[in-house]
Amino acid sequence: MNGARALIETLADAGVEVCFTNPGTSEMHFVAALDEVEPMRGILCLFEGGATGAADGYARMADRPAATLLHLGPGLGNGFANLHNARRAATPVVNIVGDHATYHKRYDAPLESDIDSVASACSTFVRRSTTTADVARDAADTVAAAMGSPRQVATLILPADVCWSDAPGPVEPTPPVPPGAVADSLVAEVCSALSTPGAVLLVGGRTMREAGLVAAARVVAATGARLFSETFPARHERGAGLPSVERLAYLAEFAQMQLDGATHLVAVDTPAPVSFFAYPDKASVLTPEGCEVTTVDTTVDPVALLEAVATALDAPGDVAVASPARPDRPTGELTSESVAQAIAAQLPDRAIVVDEANTSGLFLPGATAGGPRHDWLCLTGGAIGIGMPLATGAAVACPDRKVLSLEADGSAMYTMQCLWTQARERRDVVTVVFANHSYAVLNMELNRVGAETIGPKARRMLDLTGPDLDFVALARGMGVKASRALTAEDFNEQLEAALAERGPVLIEAVIPPLGL
Amino acid sequence: MNGARALIETLADAGVEVCFTNPGTSEMHFVAALDEVEPMRGILCLFEGGATGAADGYARMADRPAATLLHLGPGLGNGFANLHNARRAATPVVNIVGDHATYHKRYDAPLESDIDSVASACSTFVRRSTTTADVARDAADTVAAAMGSPRQVATLILPADVCWSDAPGPVEPTPPVPPGAVADSLVAEVCSALSTPGAVLLVGGRTMREAGLVAAARVVAATGARLFSETFPARHERGAGLPSVERLAYLAEFAQMQLDGATHLVAVDTPAPVSFFAYPDKASVLTPEGCEVTTVDTTVDPVALLEAVATALDAPGDVAVASPARPDRPTGELTSESVAQAIAAQLPDRAIVVDEANTSGLFLPGATAGGPRHDWLCLTGGAIGIGMPLATGAAVACPDRKVLSLEADGSAMYTMQCLWTQARERRDVVTVVFANHSYAVLNMELNRVGAETIGPKARRMLDLTGPDLDFVALARGMGVKASRALTAEDFNEQLEAALAERGPVLIEAVIPPLGL
Repeated sequence: MNGARALIETLADAGVEVCFTNPGTSEMHFVAALDEVEPMRGILCLFEGGATGAADGYARMADRPAATLLHLGPGLGNGFANLHNARRAATPVVNIVGDHATYHKRYDAPLESDIDSVASACSTFVRRSTTTADVARDAADTVAAAMGSPRQVATLILPADVCWSDAPGPVEPTPPVPPGAVADSLVAEVCSALSTPGAVLLVGGRTMREAGLVAAARVVAATGARLFSETFPARHERGAGLPSVERLAYLAEFAQMQLDGATHLVAVDTPAPVSFFAYPDKASVLTPEGCEVTTVDTTVDPVALLEAVATALDAPGDVAVASPARPDRPTGELTSESVAQAIAAQLPDRAIVVDEANTSGLFLPGATAGGPRHDWLCLTGGAIGIGMPLATGAAVACPDRKVLSLEADGSAMYTMQCLWTQARERRDVVTVVFANHSYAVLNMELNRVGAETIGPKARRMLDLTGPDLDFVALARGMGVKASRALTAEDFNEQLEAALAERGPVLIEAVIPPLGL
Repeated sequence: MNGARALIETLADAGVEVCFTNPGTSEMHFVAALDEVEPMRGILCLFEGGATGAADGYARMADRPAATLLHLGPGLGNGFANLHNARRAATPVVNIVGDHATYHKRYDAPLESDIDSVASACSTFVRRSTTTADVARDAADTVAAAMGSPRQVATLILPADVCWSDAPGPVEPTPPVPPGAVADSLVAEVCSALSTPGAVLLVGGRTMREAGLVAAARVVAATGARLFSETFPARHERGAGLPSVERLAYLAEFAQMQLDGATHLVAVDTPAPVSFFAYPDKASVLTPEGCEVTTVDTTVDPVALLEAVATALDAPGDVAVASPARPDRPTGELTSESVAQAIAAQLPDRAIVVDEANTSGLFLPGATAGGPRHDWLCLTGGAIGIGMPLATGAAVACPDRKVLSLEADGSAMYTMQCLWTQARERRDVVTVVFANHSYAVLNMELNRVGAETIGPKARRMLDLTGPDLDFVALARGMGVKASRALTAEDFNEQLEAALAERGPVLIEAVIPPLGL
């Protein structure tokens, strides 16, 4: 067998069974070998940013990595933004980047570029496979790196001749590095810190699922510490029956208000809270002056840590959970608030909500807090264009669950090609585009950064009018059913029909910009 | 004034008057300052790959750079592929990448990434501005680097606080490094090489415009050397009245046939010819064994070199030029060949043709060779997704000329957001999408790379069906008039109407894949 087949068999044996790809000539042996390895599924994306974001969404839901297959440096560049988001989400991704044959690189052919440098900027593990003898082991090591502690984006650079030459065959999976043990001294330190008056527990990452949230709720019940979560969790299990946690606000001023009075903050599986951006005369660090901050090494299992702390505190097992609550269907004007209400009124059980609604999504978390149990996936790294890819990957991972893909119009224009992949793969994704015809967050930020004069040229860089985007036409152009809602009643009805449908549907919700 | 204004005034004084952008929060002071500097024009792109490709197209036609304005590492990542193409085209681009405030970087906020490494992979000059005192000089130096010898993509990394702090004001332009003098010894070496029996002159880059082509034609007339051009020139002036030059074929086997018998090849403003990709058991180097190759330092003015060689050879001033010739309008079946014929039949005078038609474009150069004088812009770096951005930028640079944007359907799906920018800016771009519903080049390459078994999973990664893409709907969704042609008669009529229109129009030409 050739290197490509040995590689793909090794991936499949290690549990990697989906490859999101937009291949090129240097990847043709990999593509040809797909048919030789039954468990490996190839899913075509029409742009590499779709492939990398889909791999992120898949792994957030499947708890095992998908592979990507990208075409040399430019393909990696196209996938970079969503690999950046996956890196920030600590998602395991096996990021495979094809390259010229080893002996061809020195000729500096037109597609030659420094793949290694780009990979190192979005990926904490980078392996370049140099001979067919090693390619299977390189693949196994890349999967292990992705599934290590913490999980990560792991890149394998794959020269064409390493794929096409004869290989000895696949290898057994490399065991990933397990999480570090929870040291008694760490448990004691966290217990002590959280027992301080004014203490705050900040949770994120892997603690945002049921076991972590229950442990966190027990810990704060026992200590009296206040509980917050990071602003943009990768995957948050929520809804009626689960402990609630208030997210730190995106706006630094609001986050500072939330953290007002904090004396000691313990951050578990999330960094110490800092402002998303710097602003003139505003603080970068969000904790109050004098507040001590304890962060936990990301190699430690954060859920095990919280459970050990709860045990050490002898915390009661029962915790307060969100009560079931659903708003009524809204009537009248369609706004970001009534869309949120309408979504909450019909949220399906076990829905996967992908949230790239940005400013238009302000009311969504509140409206859905008491809904049926669901997963909420956020834009983790601030690079817009993640939503449609993430929804596509989540829908591939969970074919029996409804995916709600909530999109701001500005962000929707980034990686919209994924709608076609949703149609081709017949995935159950309902996309709602919040069409306010504006980069609303930037209009808000333009005021916040202290820019004094705001003229028409500047405003024109932040609005999406002239011409208006027609998302119904765009979706239909990629084979996705679509409709436009102008009132709350329209939206209720279209959402009900969309949720009853098998396969992707898009609703353009025409709303006014928030007066931010 | 603040740093942003000092920077933009400096750019405008140095002749940079257009900025293609998709900004974010860290760029808001730059955006706010646009209104304060009258000559600077901001053009919004809905995706950064559009901005970088448009800057390339603008500069290829304007002979001076546009600026980009990108949002941190992910924005640069999104723009990477077209910066790669611009680098390969030796296009001057002033690539501005916003960054976090200098003091904010150490907090590793969600959008933090290693911008410098990514920039160095697509840009030969990278400057990080570190204080407002220097930002204007940094900008002037970046423009000078872009306009140096050779021209290049020059990146300026611009922290937010460097923009918002008080600046001393703009500075005078930095003089770019002029081209190196043409040494007599080099002229003598080239004369001698080209006088060898079996000599070949290979031209590219800046020699592909009238002066260079005339000089090259004189040289080969005097020496008997054969003349070819690089495969994918950045800007080729052609049509009736100009010397013709045969391009080296993309397929290595064909290029080797063209170069068969070559004893000494002189490459002027282009590298020695190598295969685009490596293939099992095929050569990387395209010149025959034993053929000597002379390349010329890119700091030398290549047109001056060819003119000096012509003078030294005492070459006659008259050269053979292409005679006027237009095919008739085709009838019957619509194919890549009849589309080429139809375009040639109606090619407007001084048209700018952007060619990303890939395999479907095979017949275009032949059909248009005797057409009215025009410019032909190619995909220089092999990273698809350049066509619509390039067309947008060229149309901004040359508002009085028609742009014909010829797109393969697979490539069209990469950076289609540019259609919206064409509509907003009311640019005269006629886009033709060659809709063969296939990555036809990859179906061909899959056979060429020697992959033995080609199964249905592999084939599915290379075809664009299920669902079919509807480019008429996609264009209308972005405010661009569009129609679909199923026959040659349809296409003739729709093209005539499109060329008579002001503003962008798209024609989807439904054609069968080439039997390659």
